[in-house]
Amino acid sequence: MNGLIIWTYDWVPPGPRGFVRDLRLRWACEEAGRGYSVRTVPFDGRATNHLSRQPFGQIPFLTDGEVETFESGAGLLHLARKSEKLMPRDPAGQAETVQWMFAALNSIEMVSVPWWFLEISGAKDNQLTDWLGSRLDQLEKVLSEREWLADGRFTAADLLMADVLRVPKVRAYGDRPATEAYVARVTDRPAFKKARADQLTHFAAGDASRSAER
Amino acid sequence: MNGLIIWTYDWVPPGPRGFVRDLRLRWACEEAGRGYSVRTVPFDGRATNHLSRQPFGQIPFLTDGEVETFESGAGLLHLARKSEKLMPRDPAGQAETVQWMFAALNSIEMVSVPWWFLEISGAKDNQLTDWLGSRLDQLEKVLSEREWLADGRFTAADLLMADVLRVPKVRAYGDRPATEAYVARVTDRPAFKKARADQLTHFAAGDASRSAER
Repeated sequence: MNGLIIWTYDWVPPGPRGFVRDLRLRWACEEAGRGYSVRTVPFDGRATNHLSRQPFGQIPFLTDGEVETFESGAGLLHLARKSEKLMPRDPAGQAETVQWMFAALNSIEMVSVPWWFLEISGAKDNQLTDWLGSRLDQLEKVLSEREWLADGRFTAADLLMADVLRVPKVRAYGDRPATEAYVARVTDRPAFKKARADQLTHFAAGDASRSAER
Repeated sequence: MNGLIIWTYDWVPPGPRGFVRDLRLRWACEEAGRGYSVRTVPFDGRATNHLSRQPFGQIPFLTDGEVETFESGAGLLHLARKSEKLMPRDPAGQAETVQWMFAALNSIEMVSVPWWFLEISGAKDNQLTDWLGSRLDQLEKVLSEREWLADGRFTAADLLMADVLRVPKVRAYGDRPATEAYVARVTDRPAFKKARADQLTHFAAGDASRSAER
């Protein structure tokens, strides 16, 4: 089988549904008009059951012909390089898109995910709050001056940045109208809605399988 | 001027010297045998003085002909795509390299930098410690089974991963012999030593300019 396969878990608890990172790859495929199939590794035992394919026990990973790659950012970049709908073809536009993809992961998510983790762990005084606030303020300035991050139109950088920003606690933190409008705009895209609905359906099917097994 | 330019600060305090991220790009150029020049933005006023070129007030960024790109990961990927010494040319080897570059930034550094930040902030009970330990243990397993992360030889992924891991507090945390041997092996490369020495020289020259101004 040489087609594109997105690998995810067979099931996750209700909490993260709609936010599991296979959504980044599903969404990219929907934007690009690219067909794909979904296969799974078991959620139970994930810490060890697929380390040969994803050494941190995470998902997603993708297979596409001879290419196999983990890390949602790497998978997204792989898809983006194959579709002009996700990334411009000229070197300058491509570099602009790629820089904002890295910014989403390494300048925003590197702060927002640990901040979120401390929040849900019940940290009384979250020491990452000032850092997160400063990064989000800088991004608010950017988003108050443009509609899309790169090339004057939607790219994979917007997909990734919006996915990082739409985490409910992050989205609710502070009052940044340009950022909120941006997240609303990007997640209003039909491709996002389709990908999200498909992920919810996938994990709901996992519920049914689990009940059947018990 | 169409040559490659790496932009960094004109000066930083002694503490971070040898670890400022322009080193990732200098190192890549040394590995690739690519010439470059260095230009600077002022460290003083960095929060606002170059936002039009780096919206988070950080460095490095690079210019290379028509391409201008910030984020050290994006700059490194730009250089790697131009040199077989940094990344294989075949799609499978390239995807493997890229996935490990993203893993360095988004699976390791996303935990290690906030962990480090809490450590230096004097957090009594660093709530990111278990998470960091778990990620480093998973990586130790990988590095105990191979010498290089991708393609059976040194790539830009090793450059980035070693740069993330060599931060002193991170390197000193726990006992992971394969990881320690890996960091020692990668940072023993002449290209790393040259890049580090050049960074130290650059910031020492900044000391001289600052004294002259006063």
